[in-house]
Amino acid sequence: MTRLHDTTYRGFASDNYAGVHPEVLQAIADANEGHQISYGEDQYTARLADVVRQEFGEQAEVFPVFNGTGANVLALTALMPRWGAVIASGTAHIHTDEGGAPERVSGLKLFTVPTPDGRLTPELVATEAFGWGDEHRAQPLAVSITNTTELGTLYTPAEVRAIADYAHERGMALHLDGARVWNAAAALGTSLSAFTADAGVDILSLGGTKNGLLGAEAIVVIDPATAPGLVYLRKMNMQLASKMRFLSAQLLTLFDGGLGIRSAAHANAMAARLRAGLEQLVSSGAVPAGSLGFSQPTEANAVFAVLDSAIADRIRERVRFYDWDRARGEVRWMCAFDTTEADVDAFVGVVREELAR
Amino acid sequence: MTRLHDTTYRGFASDNYAGVHPEVLQAIADANEGHQISYGEDQYTARLADVVRQEFGEQAEVFPVFNGTGANVLALTALMPRWGAVIASGTAHIHTDEGGAPERVSGLKLFTVPTPDGRLTPELVATEAFGWGDEHRAQPLAVSITNTTELGTLYTPAEVRAIADYAHERGMALHLDGARVWNAAAALGTSLSAFTADAGVDILSLGGTKNGLLGAEAIVVIDPATAPGLVYLRKMNMQLASKMRFLSAQLLTLFDGGLGIRSAAHANAMAARLRAGLEQLVSSGAVPAGSLGFSQPTEANAVFAVLDSAIADRIRERVRFYDWDRARGEVRWMCAFDTTEADVDAFVGVVREELAR
Amino acid sequence: MTRLHDTTYRGFASDNYAGVHPEVLQAIADANEGHQISYGEDQYTARLADVVRQEFGEQAEVFPVFNGTGANVLALTALMPRWGAVIASGTAHIHTDEGGAPERVSGLKLFTVPTPDGRLTPELVATEAFGWGDEHRAQPLAVSITNTTELGTLYTPAEVRAIADYAHERGMALHLDGARVWNAAAALGTSLSAFTADAGVDILSLGGTKNGLLGAEAIVVIDPATAPGLVYLRKMNMQLASKMRFLSAQLLTLFDGGLGIRSAAHANAMAARLRAGLEQLVSSGAVPAGSLGFSQPTEANAVFAVLDSAIADRIRERVRFYDWDRARGEVRWMCAFDTTEADVDAFVGVVREELAR
Amino acid sequence: MTRLHDTTYRGFASDNYAGVHPEVLQAIADANEGHQISYGEDQYTARLADVVRQEFGEQAEVFPVFNGTGANVLALTALMPRWGAVIASGTAHIHTDEGGAPERVSGLKLFTVPTPDGRLTPELVATEAFGWGDEHRAQPLAVSITNTTELGTLYTPAEVRAIADYAHERGMALHLDGARVWNAAAALGTSLSAFTADAGVDILSLGGTKNGLLGAEAIVVIDPATAPGLVYLRKMNMQLASKMRFLSAQLLTLFDGGLGIRSAAHANAMAARLRAGLEQLVSSGAVPAGSLGFSQPTEANAVFAVLDSAIADRIRERVRFYDWDRARGEVRWMCAFDTTEADVDAFVGVVREELAR
Repeated sequence: MTRLHDTTYRGFASDNYAGVHPEVLQAIADANEGHQISYGEDQYTARLADVVRQEFGEQAEVFPVFNGTGANVLALTALMPRWGAVIASGTAHIHTDEGGAPERVSGLKLFTVPTPDGRLTPELVATEAFGWGDEHRAQPLAVSITNTTELGTLYTPAEVRAIADYAHERGMALHLDGARVWNAAAALGTSLSAFTADAGVDILSLGGTKNGLLGAEAIVVIDPATAPGLVYLRKMNMQLASKMRFLSAQLLTLFDGGLGIRSAAHANAMAARLRAGLEQLVSSGAVPAGSLGFSQPTEANAVFAVLDSAIADRIRERVRFYDWDRARGEVRWMCAFDTTEADVDAFVGVVREELAR
Repeated sequence: MTRLHDTTYRGFASDNYAGVHPEVLQAIADANEGHQISYGEDQYTARLADVVRQEFGEQAEVFPVFNGTGANVLALTALMPRWGAVIASGTAHIHTDEGGAPERVSGLKLFTVPTPDGRLTPELVATEAFGWGDEHRAQPLAVSITNTTELGTLYTPAEVRAIADYAHERGMALHLDGARVWNAAAALGTSLSAFTADAGVDILSLGGTKNGLLGAEAIVVIDPATAPGLVYLRKMNMQLASKMRFLSAQLLTLFDGGLGIRSAAHANAMAARLRAGLEQLVSSGAVPAGSLGFSQPTEANAVFAVLDSAIADRIRERVRFYDWDRARGEVRWMCAFDTTEADVDAFVGVVREELAR
Repeated sequence: MTRLHDTTYRGFASDNYAGVHPEVLQAIADANEGHQISYGEDQYTARLADVVRQEFGEQAEVFPVFNGTGANVLALTALMPRWGAVIASGTAHIHTDEGGAPERVSGLKLFTVPTPDGRLTPELVATEAFGWGDEHRAQPLAVSITNTTELGTLYTPAEVRAIADYAHERGMALHLDGARVWNAAAALGTSLSAFTADAGVDILSLGGTKNGLLGAEAIVVIDPATAPGLVYLRKMNMQLASKMRFLSAQLLTLFDGGLGIRSAAHANAMAARLRAGLEQLVSSGAVPAGSLGFSQPTEANAVFAVLDSAIADRIRERVRFYDWDRARGEVRWMCAFDTTEADVDAFVGVVREELAR
Repeated sequence: MTRLHDTTYRGFASDNYAGVHPEVLQAIADANEGHQISYGEDQYTARLADVVRQEFGEQAEVFPVFNGTGANVLALTALMPRWGAVIASGTAHIHTDEGGAPERVSGLKLFTVPTPDGRLTPELVATEAFGWGDEHRAQPLAVSITNTTELGTLYTPAEVRAIADYAHERGMALHLDGARVWNAAAALGTSLSAFTADAGVDILSLGGTKNGLLGAEAIVVIDPATAPGLVYLRKMNMQLASKMRFLSAQLLTLFDGGLGIRSAAHANAMAARLRAGLEQLVSSGAVPAGSLGFSQPTEANAVFAVLDSAIADRIRERVRFYDWDRARGEVRWMCAFDTTEADVDAFVGVVREELAR
């Protein structure tokens, strides 16, 4: 096989349009050669378990899986008996973008709550947190939050803790979808555990693929007593890798090499640069007044902007990205580990040209 | 991260103890850099679709997935309505080694049939092929066979065709679990399609990981009309890779570079060498009469041997492998793409030493 | 066994607190004695099929089941492939009161829409009717409405037709939860088919238990092509009665004896009497101004009232009923086939006493 | 509605071809009139709970459900986490006659064991009782036996105890499918608890419908700690009756009125009379030598006979019954609570005529 694609192209569609960080490719090569026991009894998975215990506490357990949907569905399934239901934001990935996987794979009912910015609060959780003991209502036994959220916003450790306390007081567990957990840590300037294990999160979907891995995510269980049977659930739900050493080796780079924070901080910085550049277009009058707005704060690696859809389409012809809510003219511009300052500046130029045309 | 393992160690436990073939690593590197549309709209997945059409026919479709259980369960699910059941050998991987995934993920009932050598025949299928129209019986709507089988044996194209005809005449579809489909092709000296598409198979789990990939399998649908909705089933069952270019690039090496047949032929040859070496131990009297037998023919990359379990354990302390049926003293010795002649000869020596001790 | 309960007690909690209409008990006795083929090949089920064809059209098929949740879940399951999702009101019984059965039994994802009065419109359906072909979104392939609704309101045939047309134009099927379908027919003064088969409904959960049966509901399929496999789905989802003659005999009374409309019309009339009596309390000044309001129109057999929760609790101590939304002081008062004018008048008196206390 | 069927007809096809015992109809009428709280908070369900505690022990709990498949699937589901699998006889109703319900509703994998007479033993259970802790194998966490079995044979209390001990020692629970539990008690001359609670059974599907009820079964949990969440599982799996008083009233007749043992003893006696009559045909030479044999002992209300299939078809034209294994010429003749001595003697006459023709 020869190279089939244009390696110079980069856009702002998604952090999973980016490829693999060179350090990750090297780690895969390092883990190669010779035989290692399959299904997780290898040296790299053992090392990953050590690293996770250092980060999340002595009881913590890690289960590498293939993708984020797998991590989310298995984490929630492990937390609850068959009759459990999940309270989540109406914008949660588990509700909007997983093809119904939680319902279909595990029969999990979701109770969704509208939120202004993708973030739940105890007050918002409360709107669906009732009915325990009533067999007619699916039993709300878990809350799921995403950090950073699907709208690019950020929960602080204190905000997570408030939800955790609210949930635990009512017998509910707290799951954190960390597809972009490294972006959250980089933005908060904290460790991963500061807003997960230390803030009351019971189980975590630890992202990796959106942050420069080839393809690896993990479930991190803070207290194994809350999530029994994950070893079986992973296998029977088709998320057990045979050559697991290569998943674990990828995940290790995020911790051992510090690549997780480095890559996420870079992506965050590129989004901040993009947001600043765009705001300057507006403030400087380089684009018509009212032609460009922002629907969410840029707290990590996403810019949510509002502009005329016809103009957005012209921009898209030059640089690919996704509409978020076309009815509102809302678009999402994502930065990745490999987004460069030149990419950002060029894109600001494209936006300026099309808005000003 | 630094290398954590002994790269010189190789055993005979499983073809998934082996790592990644260097050509596969190179293909991953070639597919890297720049942005590609995620979830399968990339150049590598497009090329894979072309290659699959060339191999399996103009209508054929390919769906890369993460692992073999994913391929098997989704393939069978796509073939059948909710009330369908599967007839399979009692030794089928879907029955014995997937943690109940077919039942749990898709509610598929399995009707299993005892077989002497892992191979079904129309006569064996017939023992469970009845009850259509009777709502009290799960409806047998698919037959699943594995080639090469879990016992290292081989279906010929004619044998597959006989089962396909039997199945199709009764309204059942035929699935082939091809976790080791390359070993079958290499052993038969045919194309993949000779014993799949051309022999009446409707849907195929195309293996890759056991044949030198890092981690990639695919579902190949011969006639899309028989398996609607796979695009949704893959997503909702957590088998959709975001950076799919890297799965497709791996799979492409098996076809485009001819690596699939090359690696499998090598593994098969190593197993033949192992079998021959062991048989010579017996015939030459180098080991005590009756101390070593064989429970299955070696038709691909597996040797199924029978020996005293205590002796097997001593051998295992030196070179790792699995018991198959400890009650019978049956063990499985597998060869991989990276097994060397020296590995084989050394292992024969170990077996001789321990049997003769 | 002797009688264990006070047969004179009646309340306003639910139409399923009522017992069995004497004509239904007689029908059960008539269907008794001798042997009949089980699982639906009996004379009563055959007769029911005839009656259903007369009412709903020559193609219509009927599948008696045990309860309303069974009817709803199986009807929706039969309408859709595994990847289908359902758009329903946020007050729909399938969302709020079935313990998550649609998700758990069949993996059906629900997209719920807030409604002011329990009724969907094409505009409301449209808020979740998108994303076909996008594997990341559960595919909206059915709309489910309830008539009369869970809030006691009524869809007219034209309103049902508008939703049916909207749905069908987009490839979605229309399910009608008819737990109180007889109350709707009685209120509309039409046949059942006028607002179901004739208005574009594809499949119907035909209620019976809430209208004086011991326990029997049915799925009515208007066009069998839209819902294949129900015969298997019913069995495999535990809704197939062995002595089905007794379910069918109960259901027959609703049609053959005209009991369905008679009983529902009576319950509706009692609710109208209750509403009128309560409104007179307000208009006459018999209770303090503002002490009693109504949150929904009374279009069938339910009165949704709003009053101080402490007062509601005092009333409840004398006559049982349920809070609907305690935070708002909303309560639900239901009338049944056996509610008498005296029951209503006495209850109005109780309400008056407690409100005026 | 008027009576539509011939009430004088009776056959030997199934005990669920029979109707409702008059005492059961009376109990339903007694439970009628007035309002009772729905979903199980009624006087009849409360009384049933008392009766079950008296029979099965102070901790025992009872959950009325609609049918036997519902009882079996919910009982097994409640016993096990999501990764549990069930060891059962290959002739078990849950495997052969429930349309795949255990797999489809709850994702339960069945490991089936061939048995000569429908009865498991510890030795037979042992053939599938392995693999705990191995994530690749569905975890065997329950054993399911049926008493009387699907082949009309009987487990003694000691035989049940042996299986219970074997199971418990290995961390497996024991379920008893009691679709014909009353026939077993009548045949053994013991209480129900003698071969269930007292013999180590953890959970019981308590039959009723095959023994003269209109339609009611129950799950009896001996020790609630082994089966948490049944209250939710029953609802979410569509087995919760709204007018539960009528299910409970039916079930009460089996205990309170002693009808359970009376009816079953009668059915057993009729089967014994049938077996004796048929054996006399053979021994007296009234039918040709070798023309009629028996494949199972008649220990309860079933006679399993072997005869020429063409002759069986002629008999069937006169009196309905089912083939059991047509390939072997095996048929099943069942007696019910309403089978009379005259029915039996007439049927023996029909068999004689056709065999001698």
